[in-house]
Amino acid sequence: MATRKKAVFFFGAGKADGRAEDKERLGGKGANLAEMTRLGLPVPAGFTISTEVCNTYVESGNTFPPGLESEVHRALHQVEKAMGAVYGDETNPLLVSVRSGARVSMPGMMDTVLNLGLNDSTVQGLIEKTDNPRFAYDSYRRLVQMYGDVVLGLKPASSREVDPFEWILEKRKRKCGVAYDSELSALDLKDLVGEFKQEIRKKTGHPFPQDPFEQLWGAIGAVFRSWMNERAIAYREFNDIPSDWGTAVNVQAMVFGNMGEDCGTGVAFTRDPATGEKKFYGEFLMNAQGEDVVAGIRTPLQIEKLKTIDRKVYGQLTKIQGILEKRYREMQDFEFTIQRGKLWMLQTRDGKRTGKASVRIAVDMVDEKLIPREEAISRIKPDQIEQFLNPGFDPTAKRAAVAGNKILARGLAAGPGAASGQVVFSAEEAEARAKRGESVILTRIETSPEDIRGMQAAAGILTARGGMTSHAALVARQMGRVCVAGCGDLQINYRNKRMTVGEVTIREGDWISIDGTSGEVIHGHLDTQPSEVVRVIQRRSKAKGKHSEHRIFSKVMKWADEIRRLKIRTNADQPDQAKMAVAFGAEGIGLCRTEHMFFGEDRIEHMRRMILADTPEEREASLAKILPIQRKDFAGIFRAMAGRPTTIRTLDPPLHEFLPRTEKDVRVLASSMGVKASKLMARVESLHELNPMLGHRGCRLGIVFPEITAMQARAIIEAACDVKREGKRVQPEIMIPLVGHVNELREQERVVRRVADEVLTRRRMKVPYLVGTMIELPRAALTADRIAEVAEFFSYGTNDLTQTTLGLSRDDSGKFLPFYIESGVYEAGDPFQSLDIDGVGQLLDIGVRKGRGTRPDLKVGICGEHGGDPLTIDFCHRLGLDYVSCSPFRVPVARLAAAQAVLRNRGAGRKPAAKKGSAKTRTGNGSKRKPVIRRATSPAPSKRAMKSSKKAASPARAKGKSMKRKAVRV
Amino acid sequence: MATRKKAVFFFGAGKADGRAEDKERLGGKGANLAEMTRLGLPVPAGFTISTEVCNTYVESGNTFPPGLESEVHRALHQVEKAMGAVYGDETNPLLVSVRSGARVSMPGMMDTVLNLGLNDSTVQGLIEKTDNPRFAYDSYRRLVQMYGDVVLGLKPASSREVDPFEWILEKRKRKCGVAYDSELSALDLKDLVGEFKQEIRKKTGHPFPQDPFEQLWGAIGAVFRSWMNERAIAYREFNDIPSDWGTAVNVQAMVFGNMGEDCGTGVAFTRDPATGEKKFYGEFLMNAQGEDVVAGIRTPLQIEKLKTIDRKVYGQLTKIQGILEKRYREMQDFEFTIQRGKLWMLQTRDGKRTGKASVRIAVDMVDEKLIPREEAISRIKPDQIEQFLNPGFDPTAKRAAVAGNKILARGLAAGPGAASGQVVFSAEEAEARAKRGESVILTRIETSPEDIRGMQAAAGILTARGGMTSHAALVARQMGRVCVAGCGDLQINYRNKRMTVGEVTIREGDWISIDGTSGEVIHGHLDTQPSEVVRVIQRRSKAKGKHSEHRIFSKVMKWADEIRRLKIRTNADQPDQAKMAVAFGAEGIGLCRTEHMFFGEDRIEHMRRMILADTPEEREASLAKILPIQRKDFAGIFRAMAGRPTTIRTLDPPLHEFLPRTEKDVRVLASSMGVKASKLMARVESLHELNPMLGHRGCRLGIVFPEITAMQARAIIEAACDVKREGKRVQPEIMIPLVGHVNELREQERVVRRVADEVLTRRRMKVPYLVGTMIELPRAALTADRIAEVAEFFSYGTNDLTQTTLGLSRDDSGKFLPFYIESGVYEAGDPFQSLDIDGVGQLLDIGVRKGRGTRPDLKVGICGEHGGDPLTIDFCHRLGLDYVSCSPFRVPVARLAAAQAVLRNRGAGRKPAAKKGSAKTRTGNGSKRKPVIRRATSPAPSKRAMKSSKKAASPARAKGKSMKRKAVRV
Repeated sequence: MATRKKAVFFFGAGKADGRAEDKERLGGKGANLAEMTRLGLPVPAGFTISTEVCNTYVESGNTFPPGLESEVHRALHQVEKAMGAVYGDETNPLLVSVRSGARVSMPGMMDTVLNLGLNDSTVQGLIEKTDNPRFAYDSYRRLVQMYGDVVLGLKPASSREVDPFEWILEKRKRKCGVAYDSELSALDLKDLVGEFKQEIRKKTGHPFPQDPFEQLWGAIGAVFRSWMNERAIAYREFNDIPSDWGTAVNVQAMVFGNMGEDCGTGVAFTRDPATGEKKFYGEFLMNAQGEDVVAGIRTPLQIEKLKTIDRKVYGQLTKIQGILEKRYREMQDFEFTIQRGKLWMLQTRDGKRTGKASVRIAVDMVDEKLIPREEAISRIKPDQIEQFLNPGFDPTAKRAAVAGNKILARGLAAGPGAASGQVVFSAEEAEARAKRGESVILTRIETSPEDIRGMQAAAGILTARGGMTSHAALVARQMGRVCVAGCGDLQINYRNKRMTVGEVTIREGDWISIDGTSGEVIHGHLDTQPSEVVRVIQRRSKAKGKHSEHRIFSKVMKWADEIRRLKIRTNADQPDQAKMAVAFGAEGIGLCRTEHMFFGEDRIEHMRRMILADTPEEREASLAKILPIQRKDFAGIFRAMAGRPTTIRTLDPPLHEFLPRTEKDVRVLASSMGVKASKLMARVESLHELNPMLGHRGCRLGIVFPEITAMQARAIIEAACDVKREGKRVQPEIMIPLVGHVNELREQERVVRRVADEVLTRRRMKVPYLVGTMIELPRAALTADRIAEVAEFFSYGTNDLTQTTLGLSRDDSGKFLPFYIESGVYEAGDPFQSLDIDGVGQLLDIGVRKGRGTRPDLKVGICGEHGGDPLTIDFCHRLGLDYVSCSPFRVPVARLAAAQAVLRNRGAGRKPAAKKGSAKTRTGNGSKRKPVIRRATSPAPSKRAMKSSKKAASPARAKGKSMKRKAVRV
Repeated sequence: MATRKKAVFFFGAGKADGRAEDKERLGGKGANLAEMTRLGLPVPAGFTISTEVCNTYVESGNTFPPGLESEVHRALHQVEKAMGAVYGDETNPLLVSVRSGARVSMPGMMDTVLNLGLNDSTVQGLIEKTDNPRFAYDSYRRLVQMYGDVVLGLKPASSREVDPFEWILEKRKRKCGVAYDSELSALDLKDLVGEFKQEIRKKTGHPFPQDPFEQLWGAIGAVFRSWMNERAIAYREFNDIPSDWGTAVNVQAMVFGNMGEDCGTGVAFTRDPATGEKKFYGEFLMNAQGEDVVAGIRTPLQIEKLKTIDRKVYGQLTKIQGILEKRYREMQDFEFTIQRGKLWMLQTRDGKRTGKASVRIAVDMVDEKLIPREEAISRIKPDQIEQFLNPGFDPTAKRAAVAGNKILARGLAAGPGAASGQVVFSAEEAEARAKRGESVILTRIETSPEDIRGMQAAAGILTARGGMTSHAALVARQMGRVCVAGCGDLQINYRNKRMTVGEVTIREGDWISIDGTSGEVIHGHLDTQPSEVVRVIQRRSKAKGKHSEHRIFSKVMKWADEIRRLKIRTNADQPDQAKMAVAFGAEGIGLCRTEHMFFGEDRIEHMRRMILADTPEEREASLAKILPIQRKDFAGIFRAMAGRPTTIRTLDPPLHEFLPRTEKDVRVLASSMGVKASKLMARVESLHELNPMLGHRGCRLGIVFPEITAMQARAIIEAACDVKREGKRVQPEIMIPLVGHVNELREQERVVRRVADEVLTRRRMKVPYLVGTMIELPRAALTADRIAEVAEFFSYGTNDLTQTTLGLSRDDSGKFLPFYIESGVYEAGDPFQSLDIDGVGQLLDIGVRKGRGTRPDLKVGICGEHGGDPLTIDFCHRLGLDYVSCSPFRVPVARLAAAQAVLRNRGAGRKPAAKKGSAKTRTGNGSKRKPVIRRATSPAPSKRAMKSSKKAASPARAKGKSMKRKAVRV
């Protein structure tokens, strides 16, 4: 038989068996209690029973392992010595608490029992010791109640039922005519103890145990069992906490903050959790217990007040907070109790804080030399950095709106930030009003490329249909527009320019406000606060002071850039977008869609004529008119990019997207073109497709109509020549979309090179340019070895690749995708938000390996929406991609995530961070690269690690998640 | 320097350097001339210059290799000795022909020069030798013309220009007032020689060469060069003939059939090429040259007539044909010439024949012990066996229709066979008229599941839109209905029940005929001949005699079954289809679609109520009404399958397919359901999807509405119990469609097993059943290891897998797919007809490997349309699948193709034909299995090998193919 492992870890009187690093065995609370003891802080003595015992207990059907009893008794004896009291002693009784403590905090999920050791005899000892019968009976009363609830299971499972003890207590208070427990007398409390004990005997058939040791073991068992309660299981599932982690149990001497006016209790933070400012921050109450601080019956005092009440303790605390931060190298949130003028530390842990505070603290700690830069970078969560960019509503105004029931509806938080404006229902109206300087919210059932200019003009975009990767959401994020998408409660009527939401009717011109960070749609106008970072970047204001948000943001970005290997590009198709992205740190354009360029007033008609042309000659005539306009567009973008690589995609969407839809619009177009409306209508109808996503689009257009590709290649290369002649560098990369077969790319490449080389020869100029392709069809990834024979670069179009690999239309998935995510069918979440690594990820892996097998220096990037998702960026880093490309406002997030990917994977794979040109090393060994795709194990980042703490703790989400265990049902 | 290879191969006087097996070096013609000489047959002496010389000649810029001259002169000397004449001799001149001869026949693609050796002197010798000046000058005239055309390049490149020699000849005929060349006198011909020579001097600046050796080398070079002419290159590309095969050149002594009445020439077959009957078959003409037999000026005589004209020669020929068949073990097609009563054999080769003749010959040759069974099976092309099943038009009637300009239009040959009937434009009308015993052609713009019963009732189906795998085509083939699909010339107007095709208007009730084998749509009624095989199988008539088509067909099928490893199943969803398929040899159902079962009058309303239900309770009420109907359906199928495994797929199509489309139909439904039409319309619209192919369908329905799956599982298992109680075996396999994530399958499997086990427990019965899934999404194949944790079988749904892997909607690909195939972008052809092995094939390979990695005994099949495609079947065999499933009428083809796959791959991979249960062997070694996907190299069957000879030789197709070399253009 193997030697039994140590199961019980004592702490007290300056000595401890454990330490902060022992969280696995001792849980967070236990490890920190041990650590504080070691640090010489005043911690009530106690001991921790290890998490391993929890597993043994659960696995053996709730029985304690042999040997535990003697270890516990030995430790308890040490506690008695340290505290100078004896457990169960009638004159000098030691009271203890029994609390859970898992490796990570699971607030409120498991059970606690306080005041153990009290019984009809020891309560007398306590009275004598404290000279405070009311306190003693109140403590006893609490023990009996908690013991009944927790250990004996009398607490009702549903919150709709009433706790039997609360019921008795309530009756007593009514009888006494008082409102609060604290108004009950010692006698009342003594009576209550009796009534509670009676209730226990009635409900369980057994009396409340008078034996302190029976109490102790009962409580320990109950806490272990609470690891397996439904609430805890659901919470663990939602937060990806393995069930075999187990909880530790902490048995600790009780100290009391409610023994009198020289007693008190409080909670404090080592820094301001709202702003991150380095100042001692906290609240306390004198003559109170911990729960009183939280309960809100009495208003706690700011910690500075303690200075005047108990100068010594305040001094101790300020010293302690320094010790804690130095030891933990993190902002701490700690609890303390003052018992008769003596300070006791009850808990410390990493403190929760706002996103911006988190970032500031990490940055400050580097400056204070508490942590190295890399650790700061690892700590900052991607969505925390994003908070620096988003405008927000004025908090007071928002609070008033919520209080005033102004929240109309809730949609998807598709474009973060806040916007307030007048509702308009058409892109034209949005443009017209914006020109007059009005702020508008463009409100559509869904948006289409025709709405682009209206979206540009609007302060915010609101749609009734569509998901996080709908057209509206995609474009809004690219433009940095605030957007709430897929708000199903809106009933929009374009004809009479109204929308109804429940009872409320909104007319064109009415004010609404949308919160693209929360998804809320608010009735009326709300003041917004623009982000300081964006204002400084746009040179609209200057950064203020050393701790300005812009300074903090810039520091983080600079550090991240020093660490990351992945390049960050942006998806942009307008010069101003490109400029903004460069200001945010973009190192190139990964995807310039050219289709948006066809929707301007000056060009859409030519485009339509081109589409409806009967002969190649007619088509070329229309294209000739589009050519100079496109050339100008491209030149603008090249100038904005100032020599950075710029990937331009040739025309991608099906042609019918450019045509008018309504009969009226067709008539207008027909008369302007001088053709019969019926003929035109027939043409429009003939372009209709059952599954346009899989239809005549992408390179299929360019292959059937090579003159379109030729025109675009000409416009790109001529623009490049024009800009180069101005003395600027240009790096065009021409990208052919939707290639599935190498021959498709071959055909298009031939067209591009023929035109490009002809232009360069004629102009006698040299402009290096690349021709490459999107990899957005499974077949392209599977045959990447063939495609790389032609392609000089790959760019993964993961939006379409996800749609085809999963057979899932993002436009149509609204009927089941939310359910899939909610119920855990898609256990990794929405595949359009974070790359489906197990499925689509395999194709990326295959594509990189095969592509670089053919062409070792193949440049590979990703330009789908996933390019801005931290989990995906980590995966791209591990795959050895050259860059990720995302919308301009996402660039800072991507810079951070790319740096974190380096840190997270450093050493883990013993794979040198691949450098440019070392493609061979990266792909030389297929089998060793295999683990790039794996289940969520370290060092791959887990969903949980990436989530903001706010979300992770949300009980609503946790509840939603628990559906997984029930039958799947709508 | 390496020893020079032998370049020239003599044959003559009973001896030959080469043999039949030397086709690679000597070409088909040369090898067979050598072989006939060896066999002692009377072959004019000659020699063959090897194909290797052709390559050297072409590569070195059209120069002859050193040493060739002396070899040729040596061989020519042997020819002179054998023929008793001397090349270039003025009194006893030997004349020779120079002909091409590649490894495979390339009829008319390369050049030939006859009568070489004639000049102004030797022509006199020929006159004296033959005493026939007209003959001599005619021969000389022909030489000069051919030499000018072929060697000197005077033949115009385009057929629109006139051959200069033909022009001179025409003038001469007019001048002489005659119609035919043969009416010209010796003097006229002599004059023509002079004029021809003048023309040559005028056009080339050089005289016609009088030196016979200059003539000979000129002709040899011209024939080699003709290997690289445009025509030949295009032909090779279309037929996948490598350019480096080269052509041989055959130089052979001339013999003449036109020297007088004791001369003649003919072509004969060793068997009847139309029926395959073993009888000597051929045609001849006396006093004629080979081209006269073909030219059609004189009507050739049947070969038996020769018996009376020249008994000796006839006797020789009948003997020779026996010798040839014995040697070649194939039906031969040979040419002969009788020169002054002496028989000369000029050529032999495998004879072309009809599909049915091919099959009969192969079968007969086995009976005659000429070839083993396996060789017979290898020889039969899959589409030849299909010809036994198709009804056809009466050939006389068809010919008359063509002559009478009755061909209205041409569409896709989507459902083979012939049908004649009255046009109807709706499924209801089709049903109504069919009930009255009328034969109808259901004519629709496109069909949908609602049309199923009408399609069943119709004799044929004609659509204006849709491809080879459109709904109409799929269903028609499954039902064995004749179908012409995607006939774009039809303008169908449902409202006034008319269609126009060009100038012709067809009204409902008018007769048309459609040929589903050729794609033709014919105006009016045409008599059809049903297939004997189908009549016998359906027991509507008995097989007639030993050589009845049914007997031949059955023999082939029996032999194939003895060889093949793959099981053959069928796609069927009606008992009569299932019965038919079993009669055709199906060993199970691979895909029973259940959606067609929802369209009957007695059920569609319940289905619609179910779809439009507001609550699960309402939905379940409607489902409860559908349950007994489905149960009955399934019971019928189980009975028909008599214990064979039956894979039933749960509901797959998006729900909107079941709803009425027009506003009127919605109104009718609304009133019958007692709801507001507007509400119903809104519901119908809310179910609309942008990309239904990627939308809410497949298991996504069953997951959101588990009660649908539960109802279907109940119906299946209850039906199985019912049939088992009748004493019959049942093997249900329940298949969940469109699974992309193992959790989807897990959810559905739980529903199925819960219901099934509940039914079985209640009925106290045991019915073994399997639960498996379609693999039809790339993600499913990529994560097959996970999916196989749950699935007991996989069935590749290659239709949808092709659509998603290639991002290609088969419904919408009409605008570019034909162009892709025609221009060679998709070099392997239509991916919906024959599996895209390079792309989709990789996913099949990955799926099998990963799936069997998890579950070694995983049953894997394919149930897409590709299951009936021989190339795909070969691939499935190599992958180690368990079965292929195809439409009932395709089962015989699949049985044959599966046997051929065994023969083709035998030994090649040194992989033992995997037997059931040896899955481990199959998947044990991933790397060795790699070559399953490879480029078209032996022993993978090439496209060409699979094509019917008819198609391969079609010059129209060859022309289309040549577009590939030009710029891709519409």
